[in-house]
Amino acid sequence: MAHAVSPLAPKTVPEMPAVPGVRFATAAAGIKYKGRTDVLLVALDEGTEVAGVFTTSKCPSAPVDWCRRSLAQGRARAVLVNSGNANAFTGAKGVATVEATAAGAGAFVGCDPAEIFLASTGVIGEPLDAGKILAVLPDAAARLADGPWIEAAKAIMTTDTFPKVATARAQIGDTDVVLCGIAKGAGMIAPDMATMLSFVFTDAAIAAPVLQDLLSAAVVDSFNAVTVDGDTSTSDTLLLFATGKSGAPRIDDPADPRLGAFRAALDAVTLDLARQVARDGEGARKFVEVTVEGAVSKASARRIAMSVANSPLVKTAVAGEDANWGRIVMAVGKAGEPADRDRLAIWFGETRVAVDGARDPDYSEAAASAHMQGDHIRIRIALGLGEGRDTTYTCDLTKEYVAINGDYRS
Amino acid sequence: MAHAVSPLAPKTVPEMPAVPGVRFATAAAGIKYKGRTDVLLVALDEGTEVAGVFTTSKCPSAPVDWCRRSLAQGRARAVLVNSGNANAFTGAKGVATVEATAAGAGAFVGCDPAEIFLASTGVIGEPLDAGKILAVLPDAAARLADGPWIEAAKAIMTTDTFPKVATARAQIGDTDVVLCGIAKGAGMIAPDMATMLSFVFTDAAIAAPVLQDLLSAAVVDSFNAVTVDGDTSTSDTLLLFATGKSGAPRIDDPADPRLGAFRAALDAVTLDLARQVARDGEGARKFVEVTVEGAVSKASARRIAMSVANSPLVKTAVAGEDANWGRIVMAVGKAGEPADRDRLAIWFGETRVAVDGARDPDYSEAAASAHMQGDHIRIRIALGLGEGRDTTYTCDLTKEYVAINGDYRS
Repeated sequence: MAHAVSPLAPKTVPEMPAVPGVRFATAAAGIKYKGRTDVLLVALDEGTEVAGVFTTSKCPSAPVDWCRRSLAQGRARAVLVNSGNANAFTGAKGVATVEATAAGAGAFVGCDPAEIFLASTGVIGEPLDAGKILAVLPDAAARLADGPWIEAAKAIMTTDTFPKVATARAQIGDTDVVLCGIAKGAGMIAPDMATMLSFVFTDAAIAAPVLQDLLSAAVVDSFNAVTVDGDTSTSDTLLLFATGKSGAPRIDDPADPRLGAFRAALDAVTLDLARQVARDGEGARKFVEVTVEGAVSKASARRIAMSVANSPLVKTAVAGEDANWGRIVMAVGKAGEPADRDRLAIWFGETRVAVDGARDPDYSEAAASAHMQGDHIRIRIALGLGEGRDTTYTCDLTKEYVAINGDYRS
Repeated sequence: MAHAVSPLAPKTVPEMPAVPGVRFATAAAGIKYKGRTDVLLVALDEGTEVAGVFTTSKCPSAPVDWCRRSLAQGRARAVLVNSGNANAFTGAKGVATVEATAAGAGAFVGCDPAEIFLASTGVIGEPLDAGKILAVLPDAAARLADGPWIEAAKAIMTTDTFPKVATARAQIGDTDVVLCGIAKGAGMIAPDMATMLSFVFTDAAIAAPVLQDLLSAAVVDSFNAVTVDGDTSTSDTLLLFATGKSGAPRIDDPADPRLGAFRAALDAVTLDLARQVARDGEGARKFVEVTVEGAVSKASARRIAMSVANSPLVKTAVAGEDANWGRIVMAVGKAGEPADRDRLAIWFGETRVAVDGARDPDYSEAAASAHMQGDHIRIRIALGLGEGRDTTYTCDLTKEYVAINGDYRS
């Protein structure tokens, strides 16, 4: 995967602190890629609680099935991730691989295999050789350390052009806690979940059901608000681990007011990672933010925003730096949601190009075009029907997307 | 629009007969394009009955609004079409243009403006100057003739690379009737309706409500089974006109058994045109037929087939001649329809690549690849759940699609 780094990559990478109770190592197992790491083993101290959100695909991967079962108990001791092969649509062999790698990791960490969480990303339908992963575990287990996070993020990349990390701090009671997250994209990105793997770690002490509430809420306006191509992966996995090592009081009530700052920090980390996924959409040259307001509901605004964000004609117009608001009208119209053509207003950046169902009489093509030449495109649509509002994130559709996906497997 | 003719264009164009009661002329009004025709006027003899199907967009164009209203009376005396400007999202100006052009055409044909049907295709959101169309009407009205159909098809093209015509014959009672149809694509192609304009003419005598039944049924497996990019136009219009000039008995009961051959002929013409639309999808290099069988219902099969046909990852894999059935699994999974991963089987052409939820052990990569190198790709998916079956038509997603749509407006 020798694609140039996305021009939309963040200019700086945050300082990523250690998370007490979390140690990890990466390894090069040669699953598909040569000359790079492709396995990440994260060991978690005893007492770690876990929450997860997974793909809505009806054909989920074997690791997704595995994680869903393990999640019921709410406890985790490790997460083992590989890139290069998704272990999806691999039948009985795929299940055997999952069981073998969980057993292997359990042996090194010293826990029940059911406390091992697994994720795989890469090609679908090719058997994943458990042996390659098992072979690197002894050495990886001997090298566990509390950093650097950027290496963890690199090991899980597929067609990603840059590693994705984010961090935030919060207080619970009087105690500082930290959150560190990593994510990978970069194709098959569509909501429920946005296709990706992401793992967020904190030293807060939060009961698994509360953690699940927080995570399920956090994805709505972050990972589920991102689309690259409308294609939902078989393997989307977002896991949140809380080691409890901060010494902060354990929270076991979702209504506990001491969760406020943590909730905000978690929302910030997931939004940051989700936006990075859109910024690294395959072939992306422009980051696109679509805001719909005045819809009859939040859900209706989301469906319209997604209709716009997923429209190939809108996305190619953005790639061509064309302030083509006619295609926005088309995408609003096809969403099937309440919309009154004659109340519609549309902005590119700060320029209102359409109002009351027709071209804005004061519309400056020059101003709109200037906005389209930037690399952060903001499209705003006002429906004038109600209070529903939503923002989604995507990228443009370029020839590079076609090139990347026309020769990905071979 | 100087795009090379699609390599998927039909090798031969059928002999298109005259349709008694139908005369037409084309003109170059310079609406947007230079050096080509962009207006089509079709005059219909008195007594012509009409049926129509239109876009489901919530933001339809002014001509679509106009046609929907006129359709209620079931009578038509002319259809006036322009390419280069869709007269969509043009507010009060758009309505005025519709009224002015209908009045103008009515004056030349000698009928009520409500018996004039209108269609416009091209850029959205730019005012359409009625004067340019009115200026060419006198000359066009003086040149009305019963052929050649290929010129009618050319005048309505936008980014189409070849004109689309189809014809069929049938008997009603003992009398021969003829059907001639034209269509244009080639972007914003998605079902309900597949984005396009299409006009079908026959000399049969069929009551408007019966005609509507026939047309509504015909689109299900033809125009509504086609997708290029999942983007539904504001302007989709399919009109069926029956002049009654054949002398065949007039049919006013949809259950009349004498309709059998006509129904089959209409289905054949609409399917032929719809497939040509997919063959001329913007940037298309491969025609793709997606068949889903064993679904729980026809509707479920359709949704899964459309999920596959609209998937950018499937379409780019086809462009790359990659037998990437993992992406088929993904697209089946994301459709949200009942599917059992472990019963799924997938074929490319005659090669079964996956069975029982995993790679077919006898799978020949060479055979599958050979099929992918052709220009007619057949993808078959068996779900093993029920009797539901459907076929949809699409094309691959190429760099040329991005190029065409990145600089369409400017």
